[in-house]
Amino acid sequence: MSFIIIGELLNTTRERIRQAVADRDKSYIVSLAQEQIENGAHYIDVNAAARIGHESEDLQWMIDVIQSVGDVSLCIDSPSPEILGLGYEMARKPPIINSISLESGCFESMLEFLRGKECKIVALCMEGSGMVVDVEKIVSIAKRLVESLEDIGFQREDILVDPLVRPVSVDVNNAIMALECIKSIKATLTGVRTVCGLSNVSYGLPARRHLNRAFLSLALAAGLDTAVMDPTDTNLISALYGTRTLLGKDEYCMGYIDAYSSGKLT
Amino acid sequence: MSFIIIGELLNTTRERIRQAVADRDKSYIVSLAQEQIENGAHYIDVNAAARIGHESEDLQWMIDVIQSVGDVSLCIDSPSPEILGLGYEMARKPPIINSISLESGCFESMLEFLRGKECKIVALCMEGSGMVVDVEKIVSIAKRLVESLEDIGFQREDILVDPLVRPVSVDVNNAIMALECIKSIKATLTGVRTVCGLSNVSYGLPARRHLNRAFLSLALAAGLDTAVMDPTDTNLISALYGTRTLLGKDEYCMGYIDAYSSGKLT
Repeated sequence: MSFIIIGELLNTTRERIRQAVADRDKSYIVSLAQEQIENGAHYIDVNAAARIGHESEDLQWMIDVIQSVGDVSLCIDSPSPEILGLGYEMARKPPIINSISLESGCFESMLEFLRGKECKIVALCMEGSGMVVDVEKIVSIAKRLVESLEDIGFQREDILVDPLVRPVSVDVNNAIMALECIKSIKATLTGVRTVCGLSNVSYGLPARRHLNRAFLSLALAAGLDTAVMDPTDTNLISALYGTRTLLGKDEYCMGYIDAYSSGKLT
Repeated sequence: MSFIIIGELLNTTRERIRQAVADRDKSYIVSLAQEQIENGAHYIDVNAAARIGHESEDLQWMIDVIQSVGDVSLCIDSPSPEILGLGYEMARKPPIINSISLESGCFESMLEFLRGKECKIVALCMEGSGMVVDVEKIVSIAKRLVESLEDIGFQREDILVDPLVRPVSVDVNNAIMALECIKSIKATLTGVRTVCGLSNVSYGLPARRHLNRAFLSLALAAGLDTAVMDPTDTNLISALYGTRTLLGKDEYCMGYIDAYSSGKLT
């Protein structure tokens, strides 16, 4: 099982994307989809939630445009089962559904929606009204999510558990806690995959690329096997190749040498 | 106890340094000493072993030149107790002696030399005729070295254990093994410091900076607390600051923010 990159750029919470979607600027969306795929994204995240009242039409337009690029795998990103359902129906390949959590009011309807679907699923370790800040508690939430998804027929390898990464600028122990969660989830729930949004860790700090890159190295060592990230960030891609080589996951270092030869390391 | 940087540049195994020493090019040696100190080196490694038959005079000249810069701490690097003794006598501040190992023929004379000296000491995990490639074996060598040094009066915090880092280009498990050694040495020999030469890990591969940087992040997480490294390599310094922040060793992220403000992160 190798590392999965989910390209994060086509998210309407980013101002430039929101504008392009409002303007129905097809060529800009196409170029970002292509750029992410060329740089190694296995899935393209698509989030249309930012324009309140337009999510359904925006998502359908975005998926249409992204799939015009060719044989693309989507990561459909919404809090709403209805919207996720629209995206799922349009997807030409089994997508990632992003996401389910134990948050009150959403869990049961999401489970109902997911029953019988052919997809991977991001399982966010949240419950009640928000984020949890305790390793044992997060692992216990992960366990409940994984068991519920298994009960409706999902395989563990299709469940991507996200322990939620909070910024070190808020609490200096937040990165350590996320790393402990990744280790513990991998040890406790054998066979599940882990995922996180890397750049959350550096929110609020300058020169974020050094923190994002170092966090990717540490998270890979802890057992991260999927990331929502910017594949056009050569800092991150270089760290990904370098760290996997150091962790013994690159026989004869050929992946690293190939990445170098093809200009991916800068 | 914070991280110790040993600046590696003044080593005559580097062609440019060997030439400068042969030419008695004082200004070049001074500039490299100053540059390393300005970039955060706590100790300056000085190795004069490359010009066979000249080590003693070369080392004395180098130390004289380096100490002309000001209040410098030295890491005196030689396989010979006699040469180390010469350096020790010249050092104006307690130096690091680099190194002792269990290699046949050297161990007893090195212990004799070290008795009563005021210094830190690099303890290389080698024995017999060379490098050892087994974690348990390396930790047992570390234990014997630390016990021997304690017997002659050294404190654990002054013993820097080097598990020896071998290139991943030789064996894809070499980095993992070094990381396991660091973890195990820190867990088994509470209170000792660990040290390694970072860039050994990337020997023989292209774009070595990505591997060196990622290895520093992983080694810090494993418990590395000293490195023989190039402090003028901003890749490494950025990784050092970023990783320490992520590992919760930088209260309120002030070290990271200061490093950014003073232009150390690039």
